[in-house]
Order: sequence, then structure tokens, then C-alpha cells
Amino acid sequence: MNSFQTSGNSPGSRDRRCHVGLLGFGPLGAVVARRLTGAAPVASLALTHIFDRRARDKQARESAPLSELTWLDRVDDLLASDTDVIVEALPAGEPSVDYVRAALLAGKSVVTASRQVMAHHGVALLTLAERQGRQLRYEAAAGGAMPIVRALGDGLAGDRVLKIEAVLNGTTNAVLSRMEQDGCTMDEAVAEACARGYAESDPNHDLDGKDAAAKLALLASVAFGLRVRPDAIDTRTTRSITAADVRTARQRGGAVRQVAHASYAAERGALTAWVAPVFVPESSVLATLTGALNGAVVSCQHAGEITMTGPGAGGDAVAVAMISDLCAIARDRAAIVPAPVLVEPREIKGFSPQTYAEAV
Amino acid sequence: MNSFQTSGNSPGSRDRRCHVGLLGFGPLGAVVARRLTGAAPVASLALTHIFDRRARDKQARESAPLSELTWLDRVDDLLASDTDVIVEALPAGEPSVDYVRAALLAGKSVVTASRQVMAHHGVALLTLAERQGRQLRYEAAAGGAMPIVRALGDGLAGDRVLKIEAVLNGTTNAVLSRMEQDGCTMDEAVAEACARGYAESDPNHDLDGKDAAAKLALLASVAFGLRVRPDAIDTRTTRSITAADVRTARQRGGAVRQVAHASYAAERGALTAWVAPVFVPESSVLATLTGALNGAVVSCQHAGEITMTGPGAGGDAVAVAMISDLCAIARDRAAIVPAPVLVEPREIKGFSPQTYAEAV
Repeated sequence: MNSFQTSGNSPGSRDRRCHVGLLGFGPLGAVVARRLTGAAPVASLALTHIFDRRARDKQARESAPLSELTWLDRVDDLLASDTDVIVEALPAGEPSVDYVRAALLAGKSVVTASRQVMAHHGVALLTLAERQGRQLRYEAAAGGAMPIVRALGDGLAGDRVLKIEAVLNGTTNAVLSRMEQDGCTMDEAVAEACARGYAESDPNHDLDGKDAAAKLALLASVAFGLRVRPDAIDTRTTRSITAADVRTARQRGGAVRQVAHASYAAERGALTAWVAPVFVPESSVLATLTGALNGAVVSCQHAGEITMTGPGAGGDAVAVAMISDLCAIARDRAAIVPAPVLVEPREIKGFSPQTYAEAV
Repeated sequence: MNSFQTSGNSPGSRDRRCHVGLLGFGPLGAVVARRLTGAAPVASLALTHIFDRRARDKQARESAPLSELTWLDRVDDLLASDTDVIVEALPAGEPSVDYVRAALLAGKSVVTASRQVMAHHGVALLTLAERQGRQLRYEAAAGGAMPIVRALGDGLAGDRVLKIEAVLNGTTNAVLSRMEQDGCTMDEAVAEACARGYAESDPNHDLDGKDAAAKLALLASVAFGLRVRPDAIDTRTTRSITAADVRTARQRGGAVRQVAHASYAAERGALTAWVAPVFVPESSVLATLTGALNGAVVSCQHAGEITMTGPGAGGDAVAVAMISDLCAIARDRAAIVPAPVLVEPREIKGFSPQTYAEAV
């Protein structure tokens, strides 16, 4: 099947909207699909194809107009379609990186929400995208609906970022803020987060800091131009935080937050990067984050501090970031985004109570 | 004088950096010029020409490398130069709009910090830029270093903005937060803001809300796709706020802020837009803004609330936004940004204590 066979129209009659193919109709993919085909669709975008391993079952459960799109259970068919952009919304565990690479090789732009793909393979994929004259966008891979990737990569391109302190895992924040509100235990709060659908299959992955570390590695590459492997970032688990820790923090006039910290001394090539539960004073915007909110405090040489907060988890928030990326691609399909040239930090330091006085 | 005469190099030998011409060497222009020629210049940018009416005097006062650039006291010479981008940093009162138009007509991209130019002539100029295949960027026109124009135009393009509540005038915020800290009068706080260089020549323009209204009109066009004349926005002066008002607000657990409010009911075509001093509860990020900080709370249909804060006044902050725009243009000089298609709101409502319970 190729685009000539599937398109019933002559090339000249194809509408001018950007044709979108969806890779994965899970919880996130379904939100994106419903937004693009719902009551208030985006004028520049037309969702035309959906790939899912269980395409037939899932299509049968949907109603028009979603059910009337082209549903595919083979990735190759999606890649051979006449779509302009692929939205990668596969669940963790799928070979997302292979599919993103294949989509770029097939001449399509790609929007992904996968921090693992971008943190581990970002530069190679962005280089491929540039060579192909296509775009790879990943605002959804860190910070949810908070447009932190654009802020660091574009909005603060004219400054020099010195430090990022951020809450990047919505599930962990929801757990900590539930403990704060109710005085409940970690186990009780985790159970509730799972019930509300915040936590991925294994909430330990959120609590242990690995998810935030992947996002931090990504943000460090954008902000500092550094190649940082997620597993080179020191992580301390938030699982060990007790109701008493949370109470004590409040008595000290602040809160416990899972903070992702990255600071870079460019002259020495020294990166300090860690994810750990720390005490945050109430004057910090990070202490105000309730529920699944994400937040970031970005310290810059010239502009000083820029802060940002927004919903960091949940399909609605992540879908906003993905659709924003789709809009950017639709607006200028000919744009070529140069791949970043990253350097290795000469030294990577982790967390130490000495370097961070506010340890819990 | 044209680019063939001024360029000593053959066309092939011109370096690949984006050549920048500066329009106006006032306080803001000087910061931009120093950043671009200082110890840590931006690799993709080369400042080559500076226009100022007093070019000769100002050049004589500078040292290398700034003094060695081409200084011009005729705008036509700048427009005829081989610069790729013009940075418009003229003081208020200059015919900025004419120069921006002329620069676009001369085939140059433009970066401007002028909210008045963009709020009154933005669509016409953006349309001209698109037709010319050039870019007109204006992150610096609202919010200082806080990248709110990008956040609304790009980062939240995939959502529907319902409401913006923002502090957009750094000088007014510095005045109010000084009154808060010291218990001083409005007159004393204004005098200090003038002494610190925050206030433009006439701080009443800041306090009366006209500056914030121009920025709000600009943000409303980006967020809602609306054509809003700045003078159609209801403004209430902050000049009348007394030390007692500020004290009372603190006793109520919050602060007085000059808030710029815009909300749009798209079904009815009804825009509510005003700038007024109002009581802001301490739970709002706007209450936490000290000094010349700006901040915004953006309420969206799908993602909920996104907040942002950052320095809103001062050359360093505004220069960061301008240099970020220059970086975006240098990164993809061929990019064509489609001009927005704006509609008129059917109805514009102003401020009323009934619609906003928290009036001072």
C-alpha cells in the first residue's frame, strides 16, 4: 500500500491541511485523536491515519468521525501513507525509537512525547530530521503543557542558562501534595495516584527519579548544549519520604518536592545534575505546586530568574503540547530545524547535602 | 551607498553569520550592542551596523570592537546595507513603524521591542513580512524576558486560551512592591523607580495602564486571534493607590497589583479586557511578583492554568528577548511565518467591580 494507491484524489485536489498519522491509540493517543476530530478541530490539521496493534478492535469501539479514518495494524502501512507528520504516542516498552527513525526516513516529520527516546537518541534523530528536511518536535517530552522546551530552546536562546530547578514528574508531585493535604502515608498517596490514573504502570519509576532524570537530561541538552545520559544523573528516591518528613517541612515553612536540579559551570565544563526529594522554602514557586503540576525555575546570566508552571501529567496536558508541535509544523512545513551540536560535560557531579543545604 | 559598495568582500566570502543592523543606540540598543560584541557573543550573529541620530558622538565614546562597526546617522544607509536583520530599539516618539515597514520593504527581517508599533500596526506589518518572505519578531514587546509571546503563540497553540491575567508593566509593579516593603507613599515610590531607571520618561504612562493595555492588546491578538485596539481597552489608573490601600491588601492576605485582564467568550464574540489596580490573593503568582517582575496566569480549555514570571523591565531583560528573536531568525533565515488572520470581537467589556470581585 502506498500513498498513490490509498489516495482517491488526484495530487492537485489534496486539501492543504497537514495530514497527521497517529502512532498508538492508547490513553494519550486517544486524547490527541479526539481533539483533532472533535467539535473544535485545528484548522490546519487533518488526522487521517491511526496505527495501533489492536486497530480493528479499537476502531470498532469508536464512532464517527474517528471510526471512519484509516485504521492500520501495521506500522509499515502508516509509513507508506500520504501523511505529513507522525504523532508518536506509543506506551513505554514499544520500540518507539525505531518507529521515529523509520518515520523520518520515510520523509515524515515527527512529534513525540517520549522523554526516553529524546533523552537517549535525541541528537541522532534531530540530525536525521535535519538531513531529511523534516522536523522532530518534542515539547511533550518534558513539562507536560508547560512549554519549557520552547522557553529554553527559543525564548531564552538569547541568554545563558546557569541553572534549572524543576519539578518534572507530575505523579510524584501529586503523591507528595496528597501527603501534605491529608497527612497520609506514602503508600496511601501512591494508591490514590494510581486510582486517579496519574501513575504509569509502575509508580516506582516516577518516585525513584528516573523519569525526571530523563526529562532533566533532555532539558540540560537544550539549555546547556550538553550531551547528558539520563543514567549519569544522580537520583535519590522519593519513596522513602514519610508523613513525618512532610509535616516537618511544613513546620519549617516549606514543602518536600522531588526536585530535578541541573547547573553548569561552562568555564570548568562541570555539570551538577541530580533528582532528589528536597526541602523547598515556601518562597519558591516549586513549593506552591499542587497535584500533578510541574514547575521550573530557570536562572539566567542576563535576565535573572524565569519561572513557569503548568499541568505536567495527564493526557489532556500532554496532548496540548503535542498539538502545539503539530501546529508549528503545519505553519511552516518547509522549515528545517538545525540539529543541536552538543558537547560532553568534563565532569558530572551528583547530589550532596553539602552542595544543597536544604536536603530533607 | 549600497551593499555592493560597502562590502569589501566578494559575495562568496561573506561569513555565514546573520548580519545585524541596530536601529537606535539608546539604553536598550546599547545593551543589545554590548551583548553581541562582548566577551560571549552569539555564534550565529554578527552586529555590523549601528544607526543613531547622534552616531558620530556615540561612536566616539565607545571602544573597540563596538567603535569599529559601521556607525550611520541616516536610516537609509542602514536600509541599504548588507544586513539581514534590523533590531528596532528606538526610544518612544521616534517613527518606529515607518522604519520597521521600510526595513521589511528593503528585504530585511526585523526584531522590535515596540508594543505600540505591534499593538497598532502588527497585522499589517506581519502581513508585509510574510509577503516579503522575511520575519518580524516581537517577543520583547510584552513581558520582557518572560517568553509569553512564544508561549501563547506556539506553546499553547494546541489549546484554546480562555483568559489571561497578567502583570505587564514592570515599573508599576516596582512602585507597588516598594510601597509594600517600605510603607511609603506612591510619590516616594515613583521617585525611587525613576531614580533606578525603571520608569520611562513619564511614569504616569506606566501607572495609568496605557503601556500594559498596549501589551495586553498584543497578547489578546496572539492568544485569541482578535484585533483589539489598545485604546478600546478600559484602563483604570494605579496612581490613586495609597499606602493605606496597600496595607489593607496585605491585611486581607494578598497584594495590590496592576492586573491586565483579557478573557474571551468565543461563542458570543465577547472580549472582556481591562487594566486596573486590583486585590490579588497571595495564592496567585501575581501577588508574589516583586520589583520589576512581570507575570502571567493563562487559563486554557484543555491544559488548565499555565503560569510564567520573569523580569519585565530593564535593558538586560528586554535585550534577552530581542537576542532570542535574532537567534530564531538566524537559525532558519528561510522560514516564512504566516501572518495572523484576526477577527474583531463583537463586544468589548471593560472593568467592573461586579465582574471582578476583588477590586481594591
